Amino acid sequence: MTHPKPLPSEPVGELFRAAFRAHPAGVSIVTATGPEGAVGLTASSVASVAVDPPTLAFSVTGGRSASHIAAAQTIVVHLVGADQVELVRTFADPAAPRFTDAMDWEVLPTGEPLLKEAIWALRCEIIHRAPMGGSVLLAARVLDIRSNPSASAPLVYHNREFHTLFQSVSAVA
Amino acid sequence: MTHPKPLPSEPVGELFRAAFRAHPAGVSIVTATGPEGAVGLTASSVASVAVDPPTLAFSVTGGRSASHIAAAQTIVVHLVGADQVELVRTFADPAAPRFTDAMDWEVLPTGEPLLKEAIWALRCEIIHRAPMGGSVLLAARVLDIRSNPSASAPLVYHNREFHTLFQSVSAVA
Repeated sequence: MTHPKPLPSEPVGELFRAAFRAHPAGVSIVTATGPEGAVGLTASSVASVAVDPPTLAFSVTGGRSASHIAAAQTIVVHLVGADQVELVRTFADPAAPRFTDAMDWEVLPTGEPLLKEAIWALRCEIIHRAPMGGSVLLAARVLDIRSNPSASAPLVYHNREFHTLFQSVSAVA
Repeated sequence: MTHPKPLPSEPVGELFRAAFRAHPAGVSIVTATGPEGAVGLTASSVASVAVDPPTLAFSVTGGRSASHIAAAQTIVVHLVGADQVELVRTFADPAAPRFTDAMDWEVLPTGEPLLKEAIWALRCEIIHRAPMGGSVLLAARVLDIRSNPSASAPLVYHNREFHTLFQSVSAVA
């Protein structure tokens, strides 16, 4: 009772949403082969965890694609750029048709769906699953990496829109 | 033996570093009170995991600050913008003096160090620790949130430099 905490003026959930809406993030598309075939989703939470052995983490929330990816043994994490923004929108919209004949993809010999226009495709084995709320935090060991030599400007998700990068501020502050 | 995998031309660790160097990320500073006092580090891996209850994840690697943060019960995750780039550099450099009199910070009634110029400060309880290689993947439940009304342009880490955002590409592709 000696240090009453000031009550936030808005519920913490609303503030949390606002804080992360404004937090910029790179964009990835994660794919796997589920029991009903290829699934995929757009993720803005992919981050490097460790280099030796190469390990990354991300989270998925709700839905059929999310549950199939969380349950998969292996996945492909595609790091994408501004040239792939339409692909990103497709995988962000659960109602959009995916893995159509018009989409440039293939099934790898190891069984996972590969989106061939991604700048980087990291085939991974999921090594850790931690359910949290309606989401699952996943960590994955990188098994092999394909890179696409075509350059693309960096793509950043911020305030529910896609952006590319402006000038460096590294020298001005 | 029927599907020999093509060997990558570079070791997977080098490709992994290159892929994440080029993957844009928002910037945070994470602080805690360790056994020897206030500690902090710059993190580019903070991401939202779940909204209900509000949960985030990030990873820390090596060093005294990282181990004290990974061991802390509660932490403060500061989401920062371009105006805080010098603060970010300070917490990215293990040799730079932190928590000096010249720095605008305070100890919260709950014990954690608060960097007052951060746009968002999320006080969290660590609820999950998963050691991986030389790193620890952490998940934390958000307890309360302070926001700083002063606006700052978004800050993005990319190719080892800090950037702010250019135009939206959401309408052009």
